[in-house]
Amino acid sequence: MAKDILIGIDIGGTTVKNAIIDVKGTMIAKWEIETKIQNQGASVPTDIWESIKIRLNELKIGKDRIIGMGVGAPGFIEPDTGIVAIAVNIGWENFHLKAVLEDLSGIPVYVDNDANIAALGENWKGSGNQVDNMLAVTLGTGVGGGIISNGQIVSGANGTGAEIGHMTVVTENGAPCNCGRKGCLETVASATGIVRQAMERIEKGDSPSLQQRMNQQGMITTKDIFELANEGDQAAIEIIHNVMDCLGLALANIAVTINPAKIVIGGGVSKAGEQLLGPLKKAFVKYALPRINEACDIVIAKLANDAGVYGGAYLVLQHTNSN
Amino acid sequence: MAKDILIGIDIGGTTVKNAIIDVKGTMIAKWEIETKIQNQGASVPTDIWESIKIRLNELKIGKDRIIGMGVGAPGFIEPDTGIVAIAVNIGWENFHLKAVLEDLSGIPVYVDNDANIAALGENWKGSGNQVDNMLAVTLGTGVGGGIISNGQIVSGANGTGAEIGHMTVVTENGAPCNCGRKGCLETVASATGIVRQAMERIEKGDSPSLQQRMNQQGMITTKDIFELANEGDQAAIEIIHNVMDCLGLALANIAVTINPAKIVIGGGVSKAGEQLLGPLKKAFVKYALPRINEACDIVIAKLANDAGVYGGAYLVLQHTNSN
Repeated sequence: MAKDILIGIDIGGTTVKNAIIDVKGTMIAKWEIETKIQNQGASVPTDIWESIKIRLNELKIGKDRIIGMGVGAPGFIEPDTGIVAIAVNIGWENFHLKAVLEDLSGIPVYVDNDANIAALGENWKGSGNQVDNMLAVTLGTGVGGGIISNGQIVSGANGTGAEIGHMTVVTENGAPCNCGRKGCLETVASATGIVRQAMERIEKGDSPSLQQRMNQQGMITTKDIFELANEGDQAAIEIIHNVMDCLGLALANIAVTINPAKIVIGGGVSKAGEQLLGPLKKAFVKYALPRINEACDIVIAKLANDAGVYGGAYLVLQHTNSN
Repeated sequence: MAKDILIGIDIGGTTVKNAIIDVKGTMIAKWEIETKIQNQGASVPTDIWESIKIRLNELKIGKDRIIGMGVGAPGFIEPDTGIVAIAVNIGWENFHLKAVLEDLSGIPVYVDNDANIAALGENWKGSGNQVDNMLAVTLGTGVGGGIISNGQIVSGANGTGAEIGHMTVVTENGAPCNCGRKGCLETVASATGIVRQAMERIEKGDSPSLQQRMNQQGMITTKDIFELANEGDQAAIEIIHNVMDCLGLALANIAVTINPAKIVIGGGVSKAGEQLLGPLKKAFVKYALPRINEACDIVIAKLANDAGVYGGAYLVLQHTNSN
C-alpha cells in the first residue's frame, strides 16, 4: 500500500498532542497524553510512541503506510540533527530526540521548535494560506514566534530564529524578563506582561474598575482588561493602546526584515480578535514602510491547539517532497 | 567545451560594474561602464550586453561557455520574474530586466536587489565564509541590508526583504527619512545621518573641534567624526556612542529574528574598522539574547565594490545547482 499517513506531535511542558493526518491534511485522529517530566523527561519518547502504536492499531493503519513523524518541541532545537539543545520545561539537555524516536519506531522523524512548527501548521491548514513568507506570533504566557521565509522555517544558526519575544523594545527601565534581561517584547505584549501593566495601574490607584475586578476575582486576566476597555475604562484602554503600539512597532520592524505576506496572531491574547487587530494594524501602518504594509495581511490564527500537530505533519511532507 | 563562466553585473545609479568570473570564483575581468539614465534608463541593458560582448571577444571566451548572468539592481525586484518594480535612481518602473537581457544575450539571467546580491557575494568570497544564515549591512549614504537564511536570499513577499534602513528606531521626534517617514535607522546610522548629528552639535555650539573642521573644509565627513573621537573630542565620542548603541539595538533585534552566524558590515562608514566594531559589539551584547550573541560574529566586509559582481555570479551558480 502506498504511504499516505503523517504523524504530527506537539510536545509541551504539560501535555503532548499527537495526531494522525493524511497527506491531504485530513485529521484522522488526535489525542493528548501527559508529559512525564520525571527523570528529566527520559520516558517522553517511549510514552509518545507507545500511545501512537495503540492508536494505529485501533485504526488498523499499518506502519508501512506512515511517511514519517514531525515533532515540535519547546526550546532550542538543531533541526539537522534533531537534537534538543535545551528544553527547560521538560528537563532535556542535548537530548537526541530524533535518534531516540527513530530507534523506537523505525520511522523517519523530523524535529523543530514548537513555535516554528505551529507557524508551519497555520500556514498549511490555518490562516497562513500557504504563502512563502509569513510570521506567526503567539501571545500567551510568553511571546513566541515562528518565521517561514522562501517556504522554509527560519531556525537560524543555533535554533534561536524567530525568538521575537526577546526583541528589546524598552531600553530604559524595562520590566525583568524570564531570560534574565530587561525590556523584552514578552514583558510588554504577553498575557503576563499585560496583566502586570494592569496591576501597576491598580497599585497607582488610577483605575477603580480594574481594582473592582481584582477585588471580586482575586486576580485580573487579559480578558478582563479587554472587557473593561470595551466598556470605556480609561486605564484599560491606555494599557491596550500601549501594548498594541509597542507590538505594532516590533512587528513592523520584523516585517521590514523578512517582508511577510501574512502575520498570523495566535495564543490566548488573540481571542480578543478585532479588539486587538484594530489598534495593532493602526500601529503597524504607523511604523512600517508603506511597501511592507501593502504586502502584508495581519490576521488571527485559526487552528488554536491543533497548529502544532498540523505543522508536524507538514514538516514530514516538506522533507519528503524535497528528497 | 563545458560551461564554466559566470557573469556578475551590479547596476548602480552612476555606474554599472561588470565582471567575468569562473565557477571557482576566480575573477577573470572586471570593468565599469556609465549608467545612462536618459530615457528612463532604456538603453542600460543594451549598454551592458554590448560591453560584455566586446570583453568576451577580447578574452576569446565563447558564449557557449557562459552559464548565466546574475544581476543586482537597486530598488524593489521580483526575483521570480526578474521584473524591477521600481528603481528610482535609474527611472525604471515595472522594467522587465531579466526578459530584456535574456532576449539580447540568449543567456539565462537572474536578478535580485543589489544589497541582497552584495550579501551573497560577501558570503561567497568575502567575510561571510559561506554560512547558511547571515546579514550584510551597508552603512553608506543610506543603510542597506541583505539577508541570507537557509542559504537563500530573503527577498520577501514583494522584494522588500532586508530593507533594514527603514526599521523605525526613533519613535519620537525622529529625523525625516527619504522614504517620507521619520526615525528610520537610516536617519541615525548612515553617513548622512551621522553627519547630520555632527551638524546639530555644531549648531548648538558644543563642539569647537567639529566647528573647526567645518570651517577648514567647508564640510564634515564621518571620517572627520571618527578621527576627532579618536583624538578625544567629547561631542564626536558621544555621536559615535549613540549611533552604535542605536545600530547595536537594531542589529540585536534583527538577529533574534533571523539568528545569523555572521553580521557583515560594509559601506563607507565601515572603513572606521575597529573604532566602529568595538562600540557596536558592546551594544549588540547589551541588547541581544545571550544565545543569539553566542552564535553570531560581527565582522567588517572584505570585498568593497566587488561584492555585487561576485554576488551576481554566485546567484547564477545557486540557480544552476538547484536545477
